[in-house]
Amino acid sequence: MQIQDPQYRERTLDAFAHQPWAEHLGMQAADLGPGWFEIRLPLKPFHQQHDGIVHGGVLATLADTAVALAAYTLAAKGQRIVTIEFKINYLRPAQGSLLLCRGTVLRPGRTVTVSEAEIWTIVDGERKLASKALATIALLPGPPEEDAALRV
Amino acid sequence: MQIQDPQYRERTLDAFAHQPWAEHLGMQAADLGPGWFEIRLPLKPFHQQHDGIVHGGVLATLADTAVALAAYTLAAKGQRIVTIEFKINYLRPAQGSLLLCRGTVLRPGRTVTVSEAEIWTIVDGERKLASKALATIALLPGPPEEDAALRV
Amino acid sequence: MQIQDPQYRERTLDAFAHQPWAEHLGMQAADLGPGWFEIRLPLKPFHQQHDGIVHGGVLATLADTAVALAAYTLAAKGQRIVTIEFKINYLRPAQGSLLLCRGTVLRPGRTVTVSEAEIWTIVDGERKLASKALATIALLPGPPEEDAALRV
Amino acid sequence: MQIQDPQYRERTLDAFAHQPWAEHLGMQAADLGPGWFEIRLPLKPFHQQHDGIVHGGVLATLADTAVALAAYTLAAKGQRIVTIEFKINYLRPAQGSLLLCRGTVLRPGRTVTVSEAEIWTIVDGERKLASKALATIALLPGPPEEDAALRV
Repeated sequence: MQIQDPQYRERTLDAFAHQPWAEHLGMQAADLGPGWFEIRLPLKPFHQQHDGIVHGGVLATLADTAVALAAYTLAAKGQRIVTIEFKINYLRPAQGSLLLCRGTVLRPGRTVTVSEAEIWTIVDGERKLASKALATIALLPGPPEEDAALRV
Repeated sequence: MQIQDPQYRERTLDAFAHQPWAEHLGMQAADLGPGWFEIRLPLKPFHQQHDGIVHGGVLATLADTAVALAAYTLAAKGQRIVTIEFKINYLRPAQGSLLLCRGTVLRPGRTVTVSEAEIWTIVDGERKLASKALATIALLPGPPEEDAALRV
Repeated sequence: MQIQDPQYRERTLDAFAHQPWAEHLGMQAADLGPGWFEIRLPLKPFHQQHDGIVHGGVLATLADTAVALAAYTLAAKGQRIVTIEFKINYLRPAQGSLLLCRGTVLRPGRTVTVSEAEIWTIVDGERKLASKALATIALLPGPPEEDAALRV
Repeated sequence: MQIQDPQYRERTLDAFAHQPWAEHLGMQAADLGPGWFEIRLPLKPFHQQHDGIVHGGVLATLADTAVALAAYTLAAKGQRIVTIEFKINYLRPAQGSLLLCRGTVLRPGRTVTVSEAEIWTIVDGERKLASKALATIALLPGPPEEDAALRV
C-alpha cells in the first residue's frame, strides 16, 4: 500500500487522539502502518450489555474506527474521512479483559476506500476471531461542512 | 405483528434497563409496541468524533440496540436475543441536541428475525433520516452460555 | 425527490434496456419515477437453486439493478452509475410465477446515493416481502474507464 | 475446520451440480476442501451490464454460491443450507475472460455459519481482488419446506 503523506503516522494518531467518543470508550491506539490500524480495548463493566458480554455497539465502534483510520493512513494531507457504511458479523461473544481490533485497507481509492476489520477476543490465552466487518469510507477534500456525508 | 408474551413491554424495558453500555451512552427508551422499539439519545460532547459530528459507533449502538429490542418484543418468555450481524449506512451527519432511533421487525421468525432501524437527526426543527440499518437477530432458547452466539 | 434531467425516464429505461445480463435473466421494467424504479421478473425454472426455490443470486441481481436505477433517475445527463456495495437479507423463499422488486432512493447525493430495495413474492394472491436490500451507489462524471469503480 | 460428513466432497459437488441457475450462468466448480469452495466463471457477453463490465448480479451470484457451499462442506449429512444474508463490496470492475471466486468459512456453527468470499479478476495476467463479500448461512435440519428460510 502506497502512502501519500510521509507524516501519515502523526496525522492518523492525532485524529485518533482527538475523538471524544474513543476516549469515552477507552480505546487505545496499538500500532499502525500503511493501510492498517490496530486498536486495543481494555474491557470494563460499562462495555457490557444486559447478559454480561460486550455490547455489539462497542464492537461496532471498534470496527468503524479501525476501518476508517486504516483508510486515513493512505489519505493525502488535508483530506478528511467519513465512513459511508459498514457491515459487521458477530462470530463469538467478546469477553475477558482485552479486545484487539485491526482495520485493513482492501482497496484504496482516490475518494472511496474499502476496508475490513477483525476483532479478537482472548480465550484461554488464545486469540479467537470475535467479529468481522466490511466497510466503505469516503475521502473528502477539506474541512467538515454541514451535510458533507454524501457530498463525496 | 403477533406477540407471544403478554408481558412483552415490561420484559423488553427491563432488558433495556439492565444494559450498562446503554446507560454509559445515555440512551433512553422512548416507546415500544409489538415489533418495534424507539430510543432517544440526548447528545453530549462525548458522543462526538474528531470533527464534531456524532461518532459512527454511537449511531451503530443505537441501531444495534433498536433492531434487537424490536425483535425481543415478539420473543417468547425466557428467550434470549443475540444480534448476528447488521449493516448501517450513514446518510447525513448526526448533530444537534437529540437523536431518535426506531427499530422495526421486517420478518419475525422462530429463531431468526430480520429488523431494520432508522435514526433521525433534527435539522431546523425537522426530522431528517441520518442513518439506516438492516440486521439479523437470533432468538435463543435459554440463559447465556459460553460461545452461544453461533450455536443458534 | 428532485430530478436533474427532464429526460430521466427515457435515459433510465434506455440504460435498463441495454443490459445483456438483465435480458439473460428475463427482467422487465415495470414502472419508474423520481427516485424509484420497479422491476418484474416472470419466474422460469432456470432461476432456481438446487432445492426448487429462486437462487439468491437472482434476487441479488434484482436488488442491485433496482437500487442503481432508482439512483440513476436522479442523476444528471451524462453521469454514470456504479454500485459500490449492497447488503441483502433473504426473508422468505421466493417462489411462484412472478417477483416484483422496487428500488427507492433514501438519500440522493451529488456523487454517492443510498438506496434500498424490496422484493415481493406472491403467496396465495398476496404480496409478501421476500428480500430487503440496502445499497450505496456512486455517480461518476463520465463514460466508463478502466478501474473506475473506486475512482469516485 | 472439522468436517462432519466424510462424503462432504461428493455431497457438496452434487448440490452445486443440481442448481439450474448455476448452469444458466455458466459457473464451474474449481476445487473445494473443509470450509472452502472455489468457483470459476468463464466470462460471456451475457454477463455484462450496459457499460461492458460484468453485472453486479453475476458477482453477487458467485459470492452467494461460494459462501453457502463453503458452509455446506462442514454440514452434517442430511442438513440443508440457506443463505440468510450477505453484503458485497465491488472493488474493481470485473472484466476479461475468467473470474475466480473462493468462499471461506470464518466461523462454523451448528445452525448458523459465517463465511466470506473473494472474487478475482485477471488483469495483465495478475489476480486482482474485484469483490469481497461477508455472509450468514443457516444450516437447517431437513428437506425444503414452505417458509423455511427463517424457521431456522
